[in-house]
Amino acid sequence: MSADRSSGGGVSRRQLFGVLGAGAAGAVVGAAGGAGVALAATGGGTTDASGAAASVYPYFGAHQAGIVTPAQDRLHFAAFDVADALDREGLIGLLTEWTDAAARLSQGLEVAEGGAVGGSDYSPPTDTGEALGLPASGLTITFGFGPGLFTDESGADRFGLSARRPAMLEPLPRFQGDALVPEMSGGDLCIQACADDPQVAVHAIRNLSRIAFGRASLRWSQLGFGRTSSTSTTQATPRNLFGFKDGTANVKAEETAIVDDHVWVHASDEPAWLAGGSYLVARRIRMIIENWDRVQLGEQEMLVGRSKGEGAPLSGGTEFTEPDFDKTGATDAPLIDADAHVRLAHPTSNGGARMLRRGYNFVDGNDSLGRLDAGLFFLSFQRSPQQFIDVQTSLARDGLNEYLKHVGSAIFAVPGGVAEGEFVGQALFA
Amino acid sequence: MSADRSSGGGVSRRQLFGVLGAGAAGAVVGAAGGAGVALAATGGGTTDASGAAASVYPYFGAHQAGIVTPAQDRLHFAAFDVADALDREGLIGLLTEWTDAAARLSQGLEVAEGGAVGGSDYSPPTDTGEALGLPASGLTITFGFGPGLFTDESGADRFGLSARRPAMLEPLPRFQGDALVPEMSGGDLCIQACADDPQVAVHAIRNLSRIAFGRASLRWSQLGFGRTSSTSTTQATPRNLFGFKDGTANVKAEETAIVDDHVWVHASDEPAWLAGGSYLVARRIRMIIENWDRVQLGEQEMLVGRSKGEGAPLSGGTEFTEPDFDKTGATDAPLIDADAHVRLAHPTSNGGARMLRRGYNFVDGNDSLGRLDAGLFFLSFQRSPQQFIDVQTSLARDGLNEYLKHVGSAIFAVPGGVAEGEFVGQALFA
Repeated sequence: MSADRSSGGGVSRRQLFGVLGAGAAGAVVGAAGGAGVALAATGGGTTDASGAAASVYPYFGAHQAGIVTPAQDRLHFAAFDVADALDREGLIGLLTEWTDAAARLSQGLEVAEGGAVGGSDYSPPTDTGEALGLPASGLTITFGFGPGLFTDESGADRFGLSARRPAMLEPLPRFQGDALVPEMSGGDLCIQACADDPQVAVHAIRNLSRIAFGRASLRWSQLGFGRTSSTSTTQATPRNLFGFKDGTANVKAEETAIVDDHVWVHASDEPAWLAGGSYLVARRIRMIIENWDRVQLGEQEMLVGRSKGEGAPLSGGTEFTEPDFDKTGATDAPLIDADAHVRLAHPTSNGGARMLRRGYNFVDGNDSLGRLDAGLFFLSFQRSPQQFIDVQTSLARDGLNEYLKHVGSAIFAVPGGVAEGEFVGQALFA
Repeated sequence: MSADRSSGGGVSRRQLFGVLGAGAAGAVVGAAGGAGVALAATGGGTTDASGAAASVYPYFGAHQAGIVTPAQDRLHFAAFDVADALDREGLIGLLTEWTDAAARLSQGLEVAEGGAVGGSDYSPPTDTGEALGLPASGLTITFGFGPGLFTDESGADRFGLSARRPAMLEPLPRFQGDALVPEMSGGDLCIQACADDPQVAVHAIRNLSRIAFGRASLRWSQLGFGRTSSTSTTQATPRNLFGFKDGTANVKAEETAIVDDHVWVHASDEPAWLAGGSYLVARRIRMIIENWDRVQLGEQEMLVGRSKGEGAPLSGGTEFTEPDFDKTGATDAPLIDADAHVRLAHPTSNGGARMLRRGYNFVDGNDSLGRLDAGLFFLSFQRSPQQFIDVQTSLARDGLNEYLKHVGSAIFAVPGGVAEGEFVGQALFA
């Protein structure tokens, strides 16, 4: 059995059969075994004959993939606690193994040579196998470091990293309306796995969790079934579970100057080891959709500040028309309400703060009252956590809050890109 | 705003942009507004230029869609309890409204005319809107009736249906290894929504739950992210979270004689109102994947009775070679172990019993020990519940049980197909 997950050679069985949904979408003919495919780190990857988004993104580059990569359709996100017994050497070992595996998985390969049909009388297979035959499906794997990695709860500095802790890397302040559940918050390490096939994203998190056995354990994890933001001008704007287009005004990868200003940590920022990286904020936001669904259309649109169908600002125009916050209608009142979400979240209300959002819709069953446990798993990347804090503080007046409950919160420093032969975050340990 | 969900007319925005995964896969050009598309009820629906599976299946027909329909990639399943105050007339009203909505949703339309951007000063929109612009994505909606609909817990017969209860429609017997959780089991009504885009499946369940408000409430629900069976010879065999191909020997829609014998209830069976229908068994099977992942390849294959890579029976051949249970190797022992899963589940071990399986992989976060709450959401359709009972009883010796925990169980009578102008299950009330 070849180490290539595609059992039929360079092109996977699923692509050959051509009968499946997400797994086959955006198929990259001839690039399924793409370990050798070299692409610009922030570029679009390879494309198929129809111009659809790529299925294989490079792992190595100036930045980690999965940030400006055009947002894939599915997510599996995992936060880990490091084991009490883990020391600096053990942590470096884990990050090295994670890097090696992530580099392979993102190219559609198994965790290691041999893989799912390998092993011996003394060892189980190195890969769990459920992605055998599936293409890379645009998988990106993005690692982050939580506050606890730098100073643990007892104040100890067992990894020798406390002096290198980013000053801003601390649990987010309490925001109005927070109802945080510790079991859905925090974490010493995180992995964001995004792919166009959820089986591929789940396979990645499962195998990386397995590699961490005894060194780090899952603290919480979240599946997202549909993206709620575009991160490329080539993507249509998706809808969140309020039924509105979400992410119309998101930072787009093609806006390189804005990305550079608002997403990437610069060498001149503190600390230097984080240059080329970013800060990741994760918020599990439960939507009280049953209540929302009883709100009339006009009020829904007033709360959001955009039309539901087109997603145009209520000041007029089409989806991508810039909102005119001063424009008034028949009365003297502005067409976009003073407390409308689009106004409060807009850079003009937040000292110019912008973030690259990369969130996902989720449904995790239902509660005992028969209400769907559904909402938005918010993910944003920004040069400084202050950008998120400013916007979230501004949103304290947001009328949407009546239909939202923030139940999970976490923050991570996301190291810069990885060069071949390095491990992720290596500069932190230099 | 047109009632058609596709905001760009007959072809959706997503298809036009051509950049998304599951949402755009298997695009049916020119058929997105396919309310008028007439297709054989058990046929494959429409296909696109590449021959990929269809995106629009008819709602009306001899059987409900979602049974022999080629298994879609994603699932949202919901079980409901009827409200204490519901009477026979109210139940008929609910089923009528569900039928009308399901017929529209499955064609890529909104719940009702007007939809997400309708309503008035006095009423909210009739559709929640998150599927606006998405194609039908192969959505099928399949309704089932649980034992409680016929006789409630107190023994009362408030719907006047107890005399028409199928004799076999009762909670499944306790099987060895069951660890059932009431909150994940049972239900008076069920809806299986399958689609190639999870957003479309979730939208369907959400809107049907909303329609039921005050009459039936969600008891439990389950998302499935990847199918674990093929129900058509045109589909490649997917893998479950044990990493093995699953459903190789499943009943296929094209085997019409087998489907007729093993899946559909006949007019000569009792009760007559269920003719053309089936029995649905749902089992939430947690897999202890962390333990499974420590098992060596040879033992994994021995437990399953098939090779992991190809999925061939250990007696030799390729995936679709019929297992030879008598064949021995170098020793006198059979190549397929006496307790191998493939042997115990095979019709020859179960008096010829076959079922049409339509299960899905799931991951619902993790438990407090950091283990993924993951496994198989098993769904099977059969002419009689006895078929499932026979197979599950045979599996009591299955070595895989060490890595499985059945935590949810439910059974439903699935009425036959619906004709235009009727409501689902109408014959039950005739």
